Amino acid sequence: MVERIHLDPRAGIPLYRQLYGQIKALIDSDELGRGERLPPTRELAGLLGLNRTTVSAAYELLEADGLVEGQVGRGSFVSGRQAKPSGLAWNELLGGAAEVPPVSPDSAISFATSRPAESLFPVEEFARTFDEVMRGAGAPAILQLGSPAGYAPLRRYLLEEARREGTARAGDDVVVTSGCQQALDLLLRLFATPEDTVLLEDPVYPGVRTLLERSGAKLVGLPLGPGGLLIDAFERALARQAPKLLIVTPNFQNPTGVTLSLASRRALLKLARQAGVVVVENDIYGGLRYTGERLPALKELDETGDVILLRSFSKIAFPGLRVGWVTAPRAVAERLADAKQWADLHTDQLSQALLLRFAESGRLEAHHQRVLASGRERLAAVLDACRRCLPREAAYTRPEGGMNLWVRLPEPLDAGELLPRAEREGVTYLPGKYFAVSRPETGGLRLSFAGLDPGLIRKGVGILGAIFSAECERVRLARRSDPAPAMV
Amino acid sequence: MVERIHLDPRAGIPLYRQLYGQIKALIDSDELGRGERLPPTRELAGLLGLNRTTVSAAYELLEADGLVEGQVGRGSFVSGRQAKPSGLAWNELLGGAAEVPPVSPDSAISFATSRPAESLFPVEEFARTFDEVMRGAGAPAILQLGSPAGYAPLRRYLLEEARREGTARAGDDVVVTSGCQQALDLLLRLFATPEDTVLLEDPVYPGVRTLLERSGAKLVGLPLGPGGLLIDAFERALARQAPKLLIVTPNFQNPTGVTLSLASRRALLKLARQAGVVVVENDIYGGLRYTGERLPALKELDETGDVILLRSFSKIAFPGLRVGWVTAPRAVAERLADAKQWADLHTDQLSQALLLRFAESGRLEAHHQRVLASGRERLAAVLDACRRCLPREAAYTRPEGGMNLWVRLPEPLDAGELLPRAEREGVTYLPGKYFAVSRPETGGLRLSFAGLDPGLIRKGVGILGAIFSAECERVRLARRSDPAPAMV
Repeated sequence: MVERIHLDPRAGIPLYRQLYGQIKALIDSDELGRGERLPPTRELAGLLGLNRTTVSAAYELLEADGLVEGQVGRGSFVSGRQAKPSGLAWNELLGGAAEVPPVSPDSAISFATSRPAESLFPVEEFARTFDEVMRGAGAPAILQLGSPAGYAPLRRYLLEEARREGTARAGDDVVVTSGCQQALDLLLRLFATPEDTVLLEDPVYPGVRTLLERSGAKLVGLPLGPGGLLIDAFERALARQAPKLLIVTPNFQNPTGVTLSLASRRALLKLARQAGVVVVENDIYGGLRYTGERLPALKELDETGDVILLRSFSKIAFPGLRVGWVTAPRAVAERLADAKQWADLHTDQLSQALLLRFAESGRLEAHHQRVLASGRERLAAVLDACRRCLPREAAYTRPEGGMNLWVRLPEPLDAGELLPRAEREGVTYLPGKYFAVSRPETGGLRLSFAGLDPGLIRKGVGILGAIFSAECERVRLARRSDPAPAMV
Repeated sequence: MVERIHLDPRAGIPLYRQLYGQIKALIDSDELGRGERLPPTRELAGLLGLNRTTVSAAYELLEADGLVEGQVGRGSFVSGRQAKPSGLAWNELLGGAAEVPPVSPDSAISFATSRPAESLFPVEEFARTFDEVMRGAGAPAILQLGSPAGYAPLRRYLLEEARREGTARAGDDVVVTSGCQQALDLLLRLFATPEDTVLLEDPVYPGVRTLLERSGAKLVGLPLGPGGLLIDAFERALARQAPKLLIVTPNFQNPTGVTLSLASRRALLKLARQAGVVVVENDIYGGLRYTGERLPALKELDETGDVILLRSFSKIAFPGLRVGWVTAPRAVAERLADAKQWADLHTDQLSQALLLRFAESGRLEAHHQRVLASGRERLAAVLDACRRCLPREAAYTRPEGGMNLWVRLPEPLDAGELLPRAEREGVTYLPGKYFAVSRPETGGLRLSFAGLDPGLIRKGVGILGAIFSAECERVRLARRSDPAPAMV
């Protein structure tokens, strides 16, 4: 029996529980049969290098389970497998524990979530939209089972809009998904297998990184500059890694907020075309440009028409309604609709019909203008607050739109370590570790500003600035008081 | 050409870019062929009510793209489609072609889809429900980003209902999914790996079989009798295959409509517990019992509490709203919510809030009663029509609820081969091949009756009966006229 026991002091599980679990497993699997004698506690402790009380505690648990019986003067014997209907060992069945997604506390000022301000939601206009949709003759059909590719009138609308804009060509089609996250999931199921290499921006939105990690594909992160993904790095990665797929967010990238320059867009497409790489353009923030000039989508610039474009209503309208869409060559769209069917049959049809009416009635455009005005104000507030409050040694991006800004604290500051202090003072954010692909940025952190009032933005950045500045000062003092090395 | 141009001044895209994009699309799709002359700028401007400079700007972009050539004194000509750099080889990248899901033609009488009757949808009551939800203070929060595990008030409601019913214990939790199809997808991502063996009913709903095929797991189909899955076959499969998972639909199984007997439920649980098999109980039709006595869910009978129970609003309320839920041990629920987050962040929150209010207001129960009354009538109609019209040699199941009934035509009749004939006469159904796991039933076919008026059910089964009877007769005659073997 002893040779089957393997305890790991670093596993984070008390040794007596490890021992208990392992003996239990031996009994459950009949490797320790009914009637067999367990080694005396003193002997087993000696053999395993354990304290005797550790072994006793494990034996007690086994007795409590009815798996082992102690007989005075004789020792402990296996009394059989658990009599009680034993539940399944879920943790074993489910494999390693899940990565827990970051949960921010109920802080007064949360920069942790990339989402719009609730106060902007035009509930009245939304209700009027609902009335118009439900008064129509098509109302019962909207409540009925729909099509995997999406609600046909919405698909037509989106395709026409895309043609007008130049993001759809003759060979393209549109598939509606439950937001961009599902579009990414379905596309990765089609394209990313464990043999594939996928390039993505670094840092990147955790939703895309996690999906890729689970697909088993090899991830390669490409660093970002003020003009987005660095084309040199992309070119090197193409040469070295022979990737199958590139996922890129050209506008107001999450988490950095940077935008891919026009020159880089052209260069990226040229290189991707030469290398035969599939380009997925995640344009979830594209509709949120507050300043500067609109740049054409990769999909617009791409002469082959091969770019797969992801968009969504969730950032410009209502994230609670899960409606996004993919514009892609028909061969891809067909496979995507097929994957969609088996993933969840189709996207919620009521929300599709409501958003269509919201758009066609002109209400979406009016709402969009209000969202842009609000975003402009909030972006100005966060940039101004960063300029005034962050320590001089900190760097930060200057987005022209979107919902996020990236701060880089100077070394050796650790944004993750400083977070509890910020939370104690009522402010929260997401530290860089959640966004890293291959280059952990200890000092990096994301400020999602779009959901917060300008007043709260200023207050929050002020608090963060004070914490970060104090830490810079502490480090400076510590360095100054470091004893000088001996002269030799 | 002019009649194909549709510009929208409110689209937020400059008119010259819209014009450029639309002419480009016409050239790309060969609707404007090489050598064709574009209207002079002044003429086109007049026809479209545009400024001439707008048209010139569009033509310049087309020239820059090499799509159009200006010839002094002659005008602008299409110089050919863009010398399109060769696109990606999508079919190669995407692997084998997708299995095309069965699409039924627009037949007058379709038995092909397992869905409720649209005429039952209480649009007025649904609209009142919306008003109540949107008048509440929580309205903006419903439109905001939600939680992967589901809209908290709905989860609480479902968990309380489940506790009352005995389908949830202290250790259980509820996760909301986008219908049962997504619950199956997420669960299979957690449990089914290419090394695993999964047991399922045979014939079975194609949505579960396809997911399993794509997971790479080994599928083993268990035959069904009038009392559901055959326990002997289950026991043999447990002994021979060491499966990890069983997926079972105890009530009104799709496609056969059969219900697992109480004795089989108990036996199944006992065997599953002994073997340590994970049991997924797909109870999507459970709310639709028209006759006979309610049987307890496996989840209710299970002493270990390990059964994972899937339910949905889609069959008792509105399939267009994609809201289902899973009741499972907390360890499973946590992992499911995590998988859900990466699949599509969360289920549409508006639909969750509407269905909650629909339920809490008592409207769901009232609607449910109408659905049951309608289903009872339709089930009686289809059973009566089968008895009167199907050839004597055909067998069919006698469901006590749900939406589906299974017909077995005598050999050598092939339900797939006979389908085009039925469709020519205005009736459609799904032949057995879409449901087979390991035992193709050439003569099997599914009649989904819940969405059809009793009159149409009778007419449709009448037409099918005539076709099947004629085919039986033809086979009989052919056999009779076979030359007798030589006497030797």
